[in-house]
Amino acid sequence: MNATNPGQELPQLLLKSQADRRLKKGHLWIYSNEVDVERTPLKQFDPGDQVLVCSQQGKPLAIATLNPGGLICGRVVNRGISHPLDKSLLVHRIKQALALRETCFGGRPYYRLVYGDSDLLPGLVVDRFGEYLVVQMSTAGMERQKDAIVAALQQCLRPRAILLRNDHSARQLEGLSDYVEAIGEVPEAVELVENGVRFMAPIATGQKTGWFYDHRENRALLQRLAPSKRVLDVFSYVGGWGVQAAVAGARQVMCVDASGSALDWVGENASLNGVEERMQGLQGKAIDVLKQLVAEGESFDIVVLDPPAFIKRKKDQRAGEAAYRHLNELAMRLLARDGLLVSASCSMHLQRSALNDIVRAAARHLDRHAQLIAQGGQGADHPVHPAIEETDYLKAVFARVYLP
Amino acid sequence: MNATNPGQELPQLLLKSQADRRLKKGHLWIYSNEVDVERTPLKQFDPGDQVLVCSQQGKPLAIATLNPGGLICGRVVNRGISHPLDKSLLVHRIKQALALRETCFGGRPYYRLVYGDSDLLPGLVVDRFGEYLVVQMSTAGMERQKDAIVAALQQCLRPRAILLRNDHSARQLEGLSDYVEAIGEVPEAVELVENGVRFMAPIATGQKTGWFYDHRENRALLQRLAPSKRVLDVFSYVGGWGVQAAVAGARQVMCVDASGSALDWVGENASLNGVEERMQGLQGKAIDVLKQLVAEGESFDIVVLDPPAFIKRKKDQRAGEAAYRHLNELAMRLLARDGLLVSASCSMHLQRSALNDIVRAAARHLDRHAQLIAQGGQGADHPVHPAIEETDYLKAVFARVYLP
Repeated sequence: MNATNPGQELPQLLLKSQADRRLKKGHLWIYSNEVDVERTPLKQFDPGDQVLVCSQQGKPLAIATLNPGGLICGRVVNRGISHPLDKSLLVHRIKQALALRETCFGGRPYYRLVYGDSDLLPGLVVDRFGEYLVVQMSTAGMERQKDAIVAALQQCLRPRAILLRNDHSARQLEGLSDYVEAIGEVPEAVELVENGVRFMAPIATGQKTGWFYDHRENRALLQRLAPSKRVLDVFSYVGGWGVQAAVAGARQVMCVDASGSALDWVGENASLNGVEERMQGLQGKAIDVLKQLVAEGESFDIVVLDPPAFIKRKKDQRAGEAAYRHLNELAMRLLARDGLLVSASCSMHLQRSALNDIVRAAARHLDRHAQLIAQGGQGADHPVHPAIEETDYLKAVFARVYLP
Repeated sequence: MNATNPGQELPQLLLKSQADRRLKKGHLWIYSNEVDVERTPLKQFDPGDQVLVCSQQGKPLAIATLNPGGLICGRVVNRGISHPLDKSLLVHRIKQALALRETCFGGRPYYRLVYGDSDLLPGLVVDRFGEYLVVQMSTAGMERQKDAIVAALQQCLRPRAILLRNDHSARQLEGLSDYVEAIGEVPEAVELVENGVRFMAPIATGQKTGWFYDHRENRALLQRLAPSKRVLDVFSYVGGWGVQAAVAGARQVMCVDASGSALDWVGENASLNGVEERMQGLQGKAIDVLKQLVAEGESFDIVVLDPPAFIKRKKDQRAGEAAYRHLNELAMRLLARDGLLVSASCSMHLQRSALNDIVRAAARHLDRHAQLIAQGGQGADHPVHPAIEETDYLKAVFARVYLP
């Protein structure tokens, strides 16, 4: 970096007494009630401005981007004070992020390249599909750097095109409006390979960035357990779990999703791998479809439950847990005498122990014994920041359930 | 099972009011202070007796083995009341346990076949090394069934020999004396294959059953990350981590252990796989060796820390955590600029979050950034009983550590 200290020239943001403790532990967020607004009023800043964060005593601690109106008003972008967030720092961080992915995934360029806070780029997500990149910016600080982000990604990866999917709900909290923008020519769907299986992901119109790379390792485990099994994939989206099970040798796979276009993509992805004859789709709300399958006396060797986050905020805790419980109980009724339930949750507010207990209770309710044979989480391209528990959100418990 | 109810003829053990709630949740243990000893004195029973456990109102709940002198005085062996623990029930349970392992490990018969409570056989552990079985009995209830256990294993698996390694510390709590007994001809060491790598495990003289199958999946992940790397394997025992790293392509592996005979086995296992030229052993206490390597300015791409349990009982919590902290800090000093720390703990009293925090703090101390790229646990042959947290003991956090 530069020998001079451009960070020193940034305006100061003074913290209250003790408010630097979380940062010293490695955390990156500054809450608005931690700022000494008497001496450094937040009102003087615009969304996306950068500041030199200082302790109450005026000791420089870090450089952060600001969003004066947010509950989380600051995000540390550099613990050093030598360099603000700009194209040069972005290139540095992207290269560091890329190094991890290349170590873990070698010559298979299909992964989350940048995972926000954990890659020290709060508010930025980049998913890589070979020569295509899909980007999400969720903070005012990152939105301000839009041109620098695009330039840095172009310098580091020379992608064929970049799609900015800046149309997700987190942006509202930061007062950012939604938009989708393509830099270069972006097709409707792009190809990726996960655990040896080919997929088309609808990046322009699908959920989030078009694909959920976070379950990679859990799907790899499903592949090991799927041969000759009859599998039900609930909330299948475009078939990440189901198609991998079929390719691994499942004798039949049923995918359930409320979206007809998601099921169309399941069909495409099944064909792409030559397993369409062993797969079928069922459109409908998960609860309704599960109830119907129970009523029809259906039974599966493996049921995969990968629902959307039912607990997006703390206030949804009780209703969300009840929804997970109901779903897991129904799923367990569909299991064969000795079956496997793969129960996932991407709600960071649902603790792993709470999900395990939902599985335990559902099994007890049916007088069955549950053995948790794996407790999976995010893959290495979604590293956890050990000071920021929000970065550790994904659970996938593999429970063998049988009549003892 | 039998049409008659032999369980009904067992003597009753009456619980106090509310003391059945844990059992109803699926738990298998009965604490001595939960027994209504006025009506059913524990003194009337001998260690290993079986009883019909009943609620305060006299409702039969389960069959349990007893150890009247233990803090945990009862272990449920059947939630049904139709059948006590005998050879027939043992055969049934062993077949259920075997079914899981055959699903997960197919034709590779090297695994923990029976994992105590989780396989509904509290106090019994059986490790399988192809045609050899190593057994541990840790409760009076299982000790009483010794002949039935041997007969049931012979019926289910027709092993060449069975070794009873009844010489571990847990037996003292149950008032059981130590012994080692061979049924059939047991060699000093037996072969196993883990993640495609061959090993000899010293079952007669080694630690516990001679091998630690529990880290299988974590070692598989190490193999994916090890190619071309320089690896330090601390508390190596017979080389489970180190030899697998070398076979996967690590350019150099150093194994550290206090036991010379363990290191001799590392040498044997390295030769068995043709990687002896890339491996070396260092005998000594881990802390001393790590300090020396730091003083010599050594550096590794990957450091694996797999210490014995430092927190065996709650009272060791503080000292144990300090020992983990010290060890992790030293290990991190040995990492290259962008390195990987694999930090394991088999202390059930050390929470996963506490281990992660030890890694976080050690990284901060050196002004480095840690990314947790995997949080591994036990393999599928050590299933977790969702009502018994003690069955969920193993942690292996994979932390990428770098200068940001």
